[in-house]
Amino acid sequence: MFEISKTDLAGRIGVIHTNHGKIETPAYVPVIHPVKQTIPSEKIREIGFEMVITNAYITMNNYGDEAIKKGIHKIINFDGAIMTDSGGYQVLEYGDVDVAPSEMANFEKGIMTDFAIPLDKPTGFGLPIKQAKAFVNHTLKVSKQTLDDSTNNGQIWIGPIQGGEHFDLVAKSTKELVKIGYNMLALGSPVEFMESYEYKLLAEMIVAAKKQMPASIPLHLFGAGHPLTIPFAVALGCDTFDSASYMLYAKQQRYITEDGTRYLSEIKVFPCNCEVCRKYTPEELMQINEVDKINQLAIHNLYVIKKEVDNVKQAIYEGRLWEYVLKKARAHPKLFEMVEVMTKNHEFLAAGTPKFKNKAIFLFDKEDQFRPEVHAYHSIVRKFKSKKKKLVVIKEYKTKPGYLSSKYANLKIKFKEFDSMQVCQYNPQLGLIPIEISDIFPAAHHETSRIDFEPKEFPVFEKTWEKFFNNNKFSEIHYDKKDDFLKYFVKSLPKDIKRKSFS
Amino acid sequence: MFEISKTDLAGRIGVIHTNHGKIETPAYVPVIHPVKQTIPSEKIREIGFEMVITNAYITMNNYGDEAIKKGIHKIINFDGAIMTDSGGYQVLEYGDVDVAPSEMANFEKGIMTDFAIPLDKPTGFGLPIKQAKAFVNHTLKVSKQTLDDSTNNGQIWIGPIQGGEHFDLVAKSTKELVKIGYNMLALGSPVEFMESYEYKLLAEMIVAAKKQMPASIPLHLFGAGHPLTIPFAVALGCDTFDSASYMLYAKQQRYITEDGTRYLSEIKVFPCNCEVCRKYTPEELMQINEVDKINQLAIHNLYVIKKEVDNVKQAIYEGRLWEYVLKKARAHPKLFEMVEVMTKNHEFLAAGTPKFKNKAIFLFDKEDQFRPEVHAYHSIVRKFKSKKKKLVVIKEYKTKPGYLSSKYANLKIKFKEFDSMQVCQYNPQLGLIPIEISDIFPAAHHETSRIDFEPKEFPVFEKTWEKFFNNNKFSEIHYDKKDDFLKYFVKSLPKDIKRKSFS
Repeated sequence: MFEISKTDLAGRIGVIHTNHGKIETPAYVPVIHPVKQTIPSEKIREIGFEMVITNAYITMNNYGDEAIKKGIHKIINFDGAIMTDSGGYQVLEYGDVDVAPSEMANFEKGIMTDFAIPLDKPTGFGLPIKQAKAFVNHTLKVSKQTLDDSTNNGQIWIGPIQGGEHFDLVAKSTKELVKIGYNMLALGSPVEFMESYEYKLLAEMIVAAKKQMPASIPLHLFGAGHPLTIPFAVALGCDTFDSASYMLYAKQQRYITEDGTRYLSEIKVFPCNCEVCRKYTPEELMQINEVDKINQLAIHNLYVIKKEVDNVKQAIYEGRLWEYVLKKARAHPKLFEMVEVMTKNHEFLAAGTPKFKNKAIFLFDKEDQFRPEVHAYHSIVRKFKSKKKKLVVIKEYKTKPGYLSSKYANLKIKFKEFDSMQVCQYNPQLGLIPIEISDIFPAAHHETSRIDFEPKEFPVFEKTWEKFFNNNKFSEIHYDKKDDFLKYFVKSLPKDIKRKSFS
Repeated sequence: MFEISKTDLAGRIGVIHTNHGKIETPAYVPVIHPVKQTIPSEKIREIGFEMVITNAYITMNNYGDEAIKKGIHKIINFDGAIMTDSGGYQVLEYGDVDVAPSEMANFEKGIMTDFAIPLDKPTGFGLPIKQAKAFVNHTLKVSKQTLDDSTNNGQIWIGPIQGGEHFDLVAKSTKELVKIGYNMLALGSPVEFMESYEYKLLAEMIVAAKKQMPASIPLHLFGAGHPLTIPFAVALGCDTFDSASYMLYAKQQRYITEDGTRYLSEIKVFPCNCEVCRKYTPEELMQINEVDKINQLAIHNLYVIKKEVDNVKQAIYEGRLWEYVLKKARAHPKLFEMVEVMTKNHEFLAAGTPKFKNKAIFLFDKEDQFRPEVHAYHSIVRKFKSKKKKLVVIKEYKTKPGYLSSKYANLKIKFKEFDSMQVCQYNPQLGLIPIEISDIFPAAHHETSRIDFEPKEFPVFEKTWEKFFNNNKFSEIHYDKKDDFLKYFVKSLPKDIKRKSFS
């Protein structure tokens, strides 16, 4: 059902096979209103979305049995894949709905939606643990029953993960749904995290779920499809994500940008090449009639979301998702806090990160010491054994690998006893680079900013440094005493290692 | 001739009045080949460029006196403003040209270009200082003569700044051209800086020139119009910049993105909404005939450059240019080095930065301590006098200004002698925030990442801390001893100040 073709960090490019064609992931899934939709579904398809989500509960209330006769594809006039939410959102908003889970399951089967969701009880955000637990257990019970009752008709049933900010519950919920046998899961209710800018909690919630899931299962994220969060959500392992924000924002006269959302009245120049932004200036768009204005804004919003997904896809293909996400983090200080979730979970992110990449990786600042590719190199060096007693440590050369540099040739001349010396280059993020393995990825395949780094900010370097000296028996270290970065680490060495300076 | 309507950092939104209409700046000026142009100038106008640059030397060689009869606007079929380079680029490439400066000046007058450039001798990059000096002096001599010979016919003559990486020469060259009387200047030859990714040198060169120029004079930057460098160039004070890269890259099958340049063959998904990227998939574009492919790529490249300029303009309107540029810096490690030029020149950047902004500023990391708005606040606090002898220092509250917080009310209850205590909040970037002035911009108008900051990385905080204690006579400081950030600074206090802990 789900084929993965390319991965980077916990993000992947994949294909989900449905009754209505193949869906390439990561995919943004626009919300279509089954009754009040104003942007035609053909337009949504034309902009580039192969899959939409609509609401089964509203459909049931408005069309009743008629819906089962017509099928959901005719009702919303969309021949691509359709996901239906089951009313869980209404439960979250209004407390409860007047339909039984089994009845809803039958309805979703009847309208032949491609992705069906059991009628869950979302925990939302801020629910006391006891109540959250009860909601999770209820949802699990319903989910088991629904899947047991389902038939093998090509529909994909999605297990709804609940738990909110109670990450243990999120983990438990995920684990159980996998055990029950779901082939796809969805993570609930990040809307409230997002409204309070608690992006970091959102990230932690995703990680809590993903750690309990086999890679073969795609993960949908409910209600989080803003260009701001898409890169992080994908990097942490979400494959699809829906949102009605393109329309909700449009109704408030808000224009989505790659970095946030602005009121139309705040925009002087449209920083966008979509058809809407090419047709109107902000001033002109302000002046058209209300209905058209909302629709035009909604279409622009869809285009900018589409572009964001495409940027993320291209970054995965290029193996640059880390770089892309860290750049994106600079859009909002609260989004920047997600970087900590990335650096703390670098082992989790390593699983999907290729061991070798075609292009040099970019190293900017301290965060990059936690890049999976960088960490993998540290792991190698932490096991490196040298028989030599004398050590030379120098800054890496511009020419890589280091042993090809003319400066390295000069070093050979400089030291008479060169053959009995272990040479290591260093790079703040990559750590020590023994010259013998200065050619393996990414030791010879990176580009680093030439700025002054504060050694205290490099704990990964420090740990490798310690291990390297523990694993080997050096009696002498030669280094440039004017090198402030190195000096900090040399200070921590046992006193019986002789310090010799050279420059 | 030049009207400025809005500024941020050293960047500005302005209008240049020419014989062919008003040009809004910052503006990218596409290069049009007077003979071999394949993208029609109407298309270039349609994409959104009001001004182009073409080459007077090539025009002279190809059209001779005919050119003067027709005028440059008819020759390249463009009714907007036209700038003409004079052959300086050919001098740089081929050593010299077979035309005298006065002859060229007459020609440029004859063809009625809107922006004319004297026939200069570009220094390029890597020229020994002695030779560079000779080139600068030659250019100054020609420039003086040319301006003296010019008539008051609405043409704008641009003084060409030379000097390359010899910043003293750049400064001298600029100063002289201003003295000679030029109303617009152009900075020469960054192409070679860019080709070797020496973005930092480019930035330093721009600053060296700008520091010698009155704000009323617009600055053109030659040959630097990539989305990568546009935000920095504008932030440092460039108003217009030309480049042929849209076409040069297209000829090499290269596709410009907001973060760099890719070979078409490397692209799986077009992360762009322009007409070309909407019409073709990368695979489809690969397969069309060579001539069309190059033109389609060139058109896309123009769209993505246009969008970058619009992003920068919108950032200036919003007062977010610092944020935009620092985010952009994460596109390449060598670009990231430009951040150092920004932080070192924060006083230069302060002149154009509004003292008050409508929106909260975003503070992410250590670099932001050098934001002009932040630095301005430090300057105020460095003069703050308190009559009190006891000091309370605490982390800033979520509620701003601090005195409105319920936590502040609690503090009043906590300390019996509260009225005799000076309360300061703090923020790593903003430094100490005396409660009495916690409401002025940006003390109550910022959003800061809640991450662990390393105190050693905050020299601006340290300096304000020192001055604050020097200016005032505190005998007691109350602070939370578990606050690692504060602890670092408390350590440096004179021993006779009593430390008292509270939490």
